[in-house]
Amino acid sequence: MTSQQLSVKVAINSWRLVLERANKKFSNLTEDQLLREVAPGRNRLIYIWGHLTAIHDAMFPILGLGSRLHPELDNIFISSPDKTTQLLPAHEVKKCWEEVNGKLLSQFESLSADEWLLRHHAMSEEDYAKDPTRNRLAVLLSRTNHMSYHLGQVILAST
Amino acid sequence: MTSQQLSVKVAINSWRLVLERANKKFSNLTEDQLLREVAPGRNRLIYIWGHLTAIHDAMFPILGLGSRLHPELDNIFISSPDKTTQLLPAHEVKKCWEEVNGKLLSQFESLSADEWLLRHHAMSEEDYAKDPTRNRLAVLLSRTNHMSYHLGQVILAST
Repeated sequence: MTSQQLSVKVAINSWRLVLERANKKFSNLTEDQLLREVAPGRNRLIYIWGHLTAIHDAMFPILGLGSRLHPELDNIFISSPDKTTQLLPAHEVKKCWEEVNGKLLSQFESLSADEWLLRHHAMSEEDYAKDPTRNRLAVLLSRTNHMSYHLGQVILAST
Repeated sequence: MTSQQLSVKVAINSWRLVLERANKKFSNLTEDQLLREVAPGRNRLIYIWGHLTAIHDAMFPILGLGSRLHPELDNIFISSPDKTTQLLPAHEVKKCWEEVNGKLLSQFESLSADEWLLRHHAMSEEDYAKDPTRNRLAVLLSRTNHMSYHLGQVILAST
């Protein structure tokens, strides 16, 4: 394994570890528990679950891995704050979550180590030329941090 | 820049970005605000600030970067839950936080890209031989996730 392959493997492991924790947490909650707020007046667990699913789904085009599976989630879980629209039922969020994360992980493993250093698609060629750290690997780490951030909130309402 | 150097740079950037967010959040809080709980009955902001400082300080020996600056923080901010011991005053937590993170970042930049792939010191030689992903880079990503996790909680009490 080259150094670069090892580094990519470490980054994917880190994603997988946080994903497994989030998955375990969400999957063990009842429909009633999913309606709890993480703190008084804040997002409900079901909203955060859908929000993470939508953000992960958006990684397909950003990483150049094809089209989104569930673009319809954005309106509900990104553009609209919680408690302003009708959310999906928990079993549908769960289905999307599993589908999106399952496909993402298998796509991650199909990229070569050097492909992780290519520009991500929310960047122009010009900006990437100026700053080559704006690559797929940076997106992966950023989304792992994003998931960790919300996992820290989820724990407050689910333990 | 080699692929491996670029990957390490992306990982350090990710750490720095989360650190800057946390720093901005904590540094702008008054002493009174720092006594707020992130959710009813949960950790106070000052405790999380000290906890992150202690965990970051423990990275020096784990990464083979020398001795800890503030091992005395562990008793207060790791071994003891919040509200069971007398915490340090905010200005002292802030001083330790800045000192630890400033020194860590400068040490990060002194490591070569390949040194990031050497075993971390919480691992035995034997276990590292079996799994070379248990390296310094993995520690860096894990601690970045840990900081993101608590930052997600801090935001609930500070906005």
